[in-house]
Amino acid sequence: MTSRSCLTVILAAGEGTRMKSSLPKVLHTIAGLPIVAHVAKAVHGAGGSDIALVVGNGADQVEAAVRSVTANVTVHEQAERLGTAHAVLAAREAIMRGYDDILVVFGDTPLVETAALEQARTKLAAGADIVVMGFRPTVPNGYGRLIEQDGRLVAIREEKDASEAERKIGLCNGGLMALRGDGALELLEKITNNNAKGEYYLTDVVEIANAAGKSVVAIEISPDNVIGINTRVELAEAEAIWQTRKRRDMMLAGVTMRAPETVFFAHDTLIEADVILEPNIIFGPKVSIASGAVIHAFSYFEGAKIGPDANVGPFARLRPGADLAAKSKVGNFVEVKNAKVGVGAKVNHLTYIGDAVVGASANIGAGAITCNYDGYNKHLTEIGANVFIGSNSSLVAPVSIGDNAYIASGSVITANVPAEALAFGRARQEVKEGRATQLRARYAAQKLAKKAE
Amino acid sequence: MTSRSCLTVILAAGEGTRMKSSLPKVLHTIAGLPIVAHVAKAVHGAGGSDIALVVGNGADQVEAAVRSVTANVTVHEQAERLGTAHAVLAAREAIMRGYDDILVVFGDTPLVETAALEQARTKLAAGADIVVMGFRPTVPNGYGRLIEQDGRLVAIREEKDASEAERKIGLCNGGLMALRGDGALELLEKITNNNAKGEYYLTDVVEIANAAGKSVVAIEISPDNVIGINTRVELAEAEAIWQTRKRRDMMLAGVTMRAPETVFFAHDTLIEADVILEPNIIFGPKVSIASGAVIHAFSYFEGAKIGPDANVGPFARLRPGADLAAKSKVGNFVEVKNAKVGVGAKVNHLTYIGDAVVGASANIGAGAITCNYDGYNKHLTEIGANVFIGSNSSLVAPVSIGDNAYIASGSVITANVPAEALAFGRARQEVKEGRATQLRARYAAQKLAKKAE
Amino acid sequence: MTSRSCLTVILAAGEGTRMKSSLPKVLHTIAGLPIVAHVAKAVHGAGGSDIALVVGNGADQVEAAVRSVTANVTVHEQAERLGTAHAVLAAREAIMRGYDDILVVFGDTPLVETAALEQARTKLAAGADIVVMGFRPTVPNGYGRLIEQDGRLVAIREEKDASEAERKIGLCNGGLMALRGDGALELLEKITNNNAKGEYYLTDVVEIANAAGKSVVAIEISPDNVIGINTRVELAEAEAIWQTRKRRDMMLAGVTMRAPETVFFAHDTLIEADVILEPNIIFGPKVSIASGAVIHAFSYFEGAKIGPDANVGPFARLRPGADLAAKSKVGNFVEVKNAKVGVGAKVNHLTYIGDAVVGASANIGAGAITCNYDGYNKHLTEIGANVFIGSNSSLVAPVSIGDNAYIASGSVITANVPAEALAFGRARQEVKEGRATQLRARYAAQKLAKKAE
Repeated sequence: MTSRSCLTVILAAGEGTRMKSSLPKVLHTIAGLPIVAHVAKAVHGAGGSDIALVVGNGADQVEAAVRSVTANVTVHEQAERLGTAHAVLAAREAIMRGYDDILVVFGDTPLVETAALEQARTKLAAGADIVVMGFRPTVPNGYGRLIEQDGRLVAIREEKDASEAERKIGLCNGGLMALRGDGALELLEKITNNNAKGEYYLTDVVEIANAAGKSVVAIEISPDNVIGINTRVELAEAEAIWQTRKRRDMMLAGVTMRAPETVFFAHDTLIEADVILEPNIIFGPKVSIASGAVIHAFSYFEGAKIGPDANVGPFARLRPGADLAAKSKVGNFVEVKNAKVGVGAKVNHLTYIGDAVVGASANIGAGAITCNYDGYNKHLTEIGANVFIGSNSSLVAPVSIGDNAYIASGSVITANVPAEALAFGRARQEVKEGRATQLRARYAAQKLAKKAE
Repeated sequence: MTSRSCLTVILAAGEGTRMKSSLPKVLHTIAGLPIVAHVAKAVHGAGGSDIALVVGNGADQVEAAVRSVTANVTVHEQAERLGTAHAVLAAREAIMRGYDDILVVFGDTPLVETAALEQARTKLAAGADIVVMGFRPTVPNGYGRLIEQDGRLVAIREEKDASEAERKIGLCNGGLMALRGDGALELLEKITNNNAKGEYYLTDVVEIANAAGKSVVAIEISPDNVIGINTRVELAEAEAIWQTRKRRDMMLAGVTMRAPETVFFAHDTLIEADVILEPNIIFGPKVSIASGAVIHAFSYFEGAKIGPDANVGPFARLRPGADLAAKSKVGNFVEVKNAKVGVGAKVNHLTYIGDAVVGASANIGAGAITCNYDGYNKHLTEIGANVFIGSNSSLVAPVSIGDNAYIASGSVITANVPAEALAFGRARQEVKEGRATQLRARYAAQKLAKKAE
Repeated sequence: MTSRSCLTVILAAGEGTRMKSSLPKVLHTIAGLPIVAHVAKAVHGAGGSDIALVVGNGADQVEAAVRSVTANVTVHEQAERLGTAHAVLAAREAIMRGYDDILVVFGDTPLVETAALEQARTKLAAGADIVVMGFRPTVPNGYGRLIEQDGRLVAIREEKDASEAERKIGLCNGGLMALRGDGALELLEKITNNNAKGEYYLTDVVEIANAAGKSVVAIEISPDNVIGINTRVELAEAEAIWQTRKRRDMMLAGVTMRAPETVFFAHDTLIEADVILEPNIIFGPKVSIASGAVIHAFSYFEGAKIGPDANVGPFARLRPGADLAAKSKVGNFVEVKNAKVGVGAKVNHLTYIGDAVVGASANIGAGAITCNYDGYNKHLTEIGANVFIGSNSSLVAPVSIGDNAYIASGSVITANVPAEALAFGRARQEVKEGRATQLRARYAAQKLAKKAE
């Protein structure tokens, strides 16, 4: 968008005690991604990906979450909590490197949008020294009001200090700010802690900059941008907003959802047009679905690739490495892990396919299982094209079944089966006439004896 | 309701590009039934089941969807899209057959109700020539207002042409119309395309009819009637309204739902009083449940019949042809397809029963499977009354197990078992003392070796 | 809270015909607990657990539901329905035992809160003779208005008798009442049935008490307290309110829920902080989860205990007696019933563990099943520490597997296995080269023959 250099200071040192959690607040997730990484993604999109991360506890984990988005991160510890300006100045070293633009955002506002940050940077590019991002809450009570005169922001007035007229102003301080890099440090360092709490407030920079004849302006961004997470109730509310947005985008792009409110996407879910999603589908990270696929209800996916016109579920569980080819079918009570399922292959019911390759048009019977684990190692099962695996069979890996082979139901297969061969490994059936009657009599007597005890 | 003859013109030629779909818009489904079939059902209920279906692309599929509701359908292609009046006149041939009443409805408004159409027909029967169906949106902005004088509808005023006073009118044009058959064609043919878009607007008939001294009136119908589907977001919203209505009707009729918002019915689901539905149940078409049944959460049904006092789920999948008798039980991770389950029979866990008959009071153990498919043909499994099928058994169809027979756990049964007999087909257990220790040592060494690679 | 003795009259004789149910109305459940038991719990919390239960049909079941909360219950039949005062006087015998306080509540208002009842009792303790509990509905239409003068409640005015000014009063009669025990009976017995319906109305006591110079006051309680259940729609609405409250409490106490609206708790669910609940989890009664556990989507629990850092689901079903130790894992399509799963043990897929003890660090392979039932008796399976059970194995109980033993995949185990031993029970694999091709030819021919029929 712009060739101006930009540093983003992410304030992420808050303790988050109201989360009642041993995990740092900004590492709780929305759509499977830590809150602070959502912020970093928005920042990255707005060209502000030189990040100065201001942290308190759990610095290493927080840094890692941000680094998963962008590598240009420096970490700055805020040892004491002495207010927002104090937090920004913890990143003094980064600011001193010299940037055209400086963005100040919060690590706990996961719904901040790239567009809002770009809007602020555009104002800087147009000559503003300070840009305060305001929003209009449905009820402004409790928020600081943005006092504007002739297009300039002259003050941020706390509610308790506001006049009757000022209280009627709907545009409130959202906390996010953009500053022209040149001169920013001087302004920030003039902020004092002469107030009731003895803290250094970033909002004070507005009056200081005005007094110094700088250009200070407000912009309006949507309220979602400033939703901060302080409790798990707020975390769930933010997740709901995120999901609602995503579902809408998906539907408008051609994905059918019978009950969108029951489908939960991950931050990186990719779905093509004319995919049908029935109700109650859960997406973990790294899932893609190609056009024409139908996903039935009660399905749970992570790290899976679903090909065109595939048919999956209900009650399907795809784990990382599941790779379903075109027109393949994975049915109910089936788990697929680290396995390719070939074109048109069918794994219809009650099956575990792990560490395997299933050939095109193969048919895996109900209850068949790849025994991939010996307690120490995972082994591969290779199933050729057009193979028929009878129900309730056990394929003890490592094992390979050649093309067009046929495995009889209930077999335990421990050695490779050549192509075109029939294999079985099951005992001959024996029948004892009348013995069921005797057996029942015995069991019934045992039951009576037990009751008598 | 009335002996008057009636033709309904269903306008279904819209392209629906905003659906982003290869499927014609009116074939997307709500509650498992195509949108246009919902319209046909409402029309059928109002006695307007001589249908003139005006179509564009995908004519055959659209016709088939309407024919699933009623057979009296003629299809009329609208080659060009030159406005709503042009679309109606595409059905000129049908109109010329001569009807007392003509209804004009849209193929993409799935929530239109029989009562609304009946209300319009009643007005025709009382002497009106044209009946325009109006509705009151929460915000009327953007809609044409219905201008009434002394009980007559004198004009439909587009918002941009409306006076300040007219804009305050809340009753808006819903697009649906009823016309006295006698004279309708003459009025429709007077409509011109002298307007900005060069289209023939059906709404123009109001002024033409008034000028001709005809009786033109408006009626008010509920807003749901005119909800049109243009995107998949709107499709999902209409589905939600449909489901909310259905759930409410079900509950008032005596069905208990702990969380009605998580239960999704098909258009033809039948449930008797004193059935309990736990959360998260999905109904495909053709399912009925008799009184006293309890359906546990996470269940998925299509084409299934559930008898009185049956107990199903959680995690049950019933496919077409599943027929559960009174007091039968189908438990978790069980799939039943094309199979009768007898009175009091139990299929409690991890089982596939396909192409089978299970006798009264039979008990199917965990993991038992009917091996019904040999890769080419489906075969029948017959299980007699009071039979006990041990866990993890495989019943290789075609096979028959006589009454009171007993199948030992882990058996593969390939031949018929007589009544009262005990059958088994499993290998004798062998134990190698101390060998687990050796095996583990070997596997652990392999693991180390792999790591070293 | 107070040393004053208290009797609570619970009016539960209503027929509930609009429920369309064979079950008495107050026995329908919310969060798994009968409505009337919710009322009894609130009453118990407010110290009013000497209960006089006024019943009509289904007295025994209703009594049992209340007795599940408190033992101090006397049951009083109201043979005819002649109004609320008549119902209270059905409990005359209990009232005559003499109490400081008398509470009158309804058996069909499951959301009544202890705090509201305590508030009323506090007023009695402060000298009031009659306390009427009022509430402010969003729209007061239809409710009797509480007419106060100088802090006294002078009348309850039915809407049809109310003046214009009185209709503007927002505080309405909620029906719940508290009376000073001393003198209550005299006041109640003065109530007559001189009215259109010929019924005895409890509300009349307000005027009678005022006429007798007693102190009559109103208090305001939240509207939820007086939500009565008359249809299954209202039942579902009350359940929704209950669940919303519970979810919020859980989240504020440190439980993470990605989609709280999809999680349904029972009345007695206990969850510690830093537990993660994914979407779509159903709790039956008597479930507890310790800190650090992660519960994946589509899980269904009853009577289960889940230890710290356990990992459960997706698609897990825990039935009564499931007891999962710390760091154990129960995966997809697994049912556990009456079984202990040891520290760090894994039961990952497609397994039924019933009537069993699984040792620490044991690994149960996919499809393995404890065959616990012989058609008459349930038997125990004991699995030692560090045991490996191969996939698709059947453990025929009673059976014991010693520590560190290893069961080969696909085995049927019918006899005890010593510690450190390797056991198998499966047939040797046989391979017939080329036979799959012959078999397919035969099956394909059968298919053709069938089609020809």
